[in-house]
Order: sequence, then structure tokens, then C-alpha cells
Amino acid sequence: MIRIIGIDPGLAITGWSIVEFDKDSNPSVVDYGCITTKKGLSVSSRLKEIYSDILELVKKYKPEYAGMETLLFYNNQKTAISVGEARGVVLLALEQFSLPFKEMTPLQVKSTVTGYGQAKKKQVQEAVRMLCNMEELPKPDDAADAIAVAIATEVLVSRNIE
Amino acid sequence: MIRIIGIDPGLAITGWSIVEFDKDSNPSVVDYGCITTKKGLSVSSRLKEIYSDILELVKKYKPEYAGMETLLFYNNQKTAISVGEARGVVLLALEQFSLPFKEMTPLQVKSTVTGYGQAKKKQVQEAVRMLCNMEELPKPDDAADAIAVAIATEVLVSRNIE
Repeated sequence: MIRIIGIDPGLAITGWSIVEFDKDSNPSVVDYGCITTKKGLSVSSRLKEIYSDILELVKKYKPEYAGMETLLFYNNQKTAISVGEARGVVLLALEQFSLPFKEMTPLQVKSTVTGYGQAKKKQVQEAVRMLCNMEELPKPDDAADAIAVAIATEVLVSRNIE
Repeated sequence: MIRIIGIDPGLAITGWSIVEFDKDSNPSVVDYGCITTKKGLSVSSRLKEIYSDILELVKKYKPEYAGMETLLFYNNQKTAISVGEARGVVLLALEQFSLPFKEMTPLQVKSTVTGYGQAKKKQVQEAVRMLCNMEELPKPDDAADAIAVAIATEVLVSRNIE
């Protein structure tokens, strides 16, 4: 049994998931959701909200590993900076618990979950729903992405362990 | 009298300065330096080092304002993400003290310090040295940049106050 927190960071919305895996790597979703911060607030207070919420999630669910996607391409550099800021405080929160951390590309996440690196968002979500025996598609997208990230993280973790 | 912390964030080197200004906006440098983190360490532990050191500097020197440059262009997006991560934990540290924060473009910093937005690095450093009555050029470059940022921050702060 292993418990993983998957995180999809962003200044406005940070998706998260807590997923447990049995010996045969079958996932079951413990909880998932989104940290949303308001546009009207200062960047620093939005970052503080993300930081505190991640601290609380780790305290509450005590995952043994964390995973995050490496986003390689952005539409513009402003987005890259702002995602970087959110990533920074998430990494700091994980570090406060000395939580081991894995990173993977979007391609790795997609190919782990669907078997196909170029899978569409909808296909990834449907695969996540089936793998985790969920009746409905997890919503919103950012939370579904975070579940996919947790599943891909488990693959990296179990490879290292064996 | 007003005391400002200027910060030039980066994952490997974060320059900082503590600068005091009298009623006529004349700067005097209280202290300056660099937070350097080792390449061999994990990103999250490097971010924690930057975060803790900024917390300590603010606790020790009790500045009333903080300033940072907005970097608009990067050679590559990987740099943008990594600078973003460092910025994120710096902003979080400032937020823990509710420290008011100003942001400015490199052009604003250069034109404040030298009167010329396209000034070269060396010219900015020489102008910083003269403005602050320092005998030698402040070293390394990142610390000199942080002093220039503090000077530009004071201009923004005093404009708001008046």
C-alpha cells in the first residue's frame, strides 16, 4: 500500500489528488480537489494560500510521495513565471515534510494512463475514471489531471523500489 | 528615513540589499550579499534555503518595503520556470511579514539609477557605487543589482506616499 499526492500547480487553480495504490498498483482515489485563489488578491497572498493549503493536505492525508508534471512549453513567458511561482511554494511545502518528490513530462503522464503519449485531455480523463473505478469523470479538469499525475508518479516510485 | 530590501531572485544566486534613504532620498547601503545554493541539492531544498534566508534577513533588518525586478524576457523557458520558483518562495517570505512589495522592469531600474534605460551593467554598477558613496563596486553583480533595485523601489514608494 502506498499513498501519493498528485499536484497540478497554477496561480489561479492548483489541482490536487490523494491516491492509494495496492500491491498490484491498482489505484483508488482517497480524495481530490482544487485550490483556487482570487484574481483580486496580491500574487504573494495567493501564493501563501496555495502554500498553506498544500501544507494542510499533506498533514491531513500523510502521503508518502508527491508528484508534479514538468511543463515544458508555454504559450507565453508570463505564464511560465506565474506557474513557476506556484511550483516554488508547492515544492517548499513538500520540503517542509521532507516528502520525496517525482517529476514527469505530460507525455509520461499520458502514456502511463492511456498507453498513448498523444492522448487528448478527454481520453486521459476517461482512462483515469476507469482505472480508479469512478462512476463519473472527476471534475474540474485540474483535479482529474492531478489524479493522472499521481498514477504516473506511482509508476516511477515502484520502478525505483523494485 | 525609510529602509528597503532589494532582491534579485534566482535558484543558484539570489542577490539582496538593505538600503536606507533619508528625507531627500539619498541612499546609504546598510548591508548586501548573496544567497547561493548548491547545484547538487534538490530544487526543493534549494528553495527552502532561499526562503529561510529571506525570512532571516527581514527579521534582522526590518525593512519597511521590498522590491524586485520583473524579468520580462528569458533565453529559455526553463530559466523562466526556475526564476519563477525562486520568486515564488521570496514572495511567500515577504508575505509572512506582510511586507509591502513593489515590482519594476529592468528598464525602470536602469533609468532610475543612471538616467538611461539602455545603460550597460557596468554603468549601472558604477552609478550605484557613486549614488551610495561606496569606495568600490559592490560585488558580486547580483548584489549590485539588488542595490539598484532598492534604489528604484524607493522612487516608487516615495511617489505613492507623496
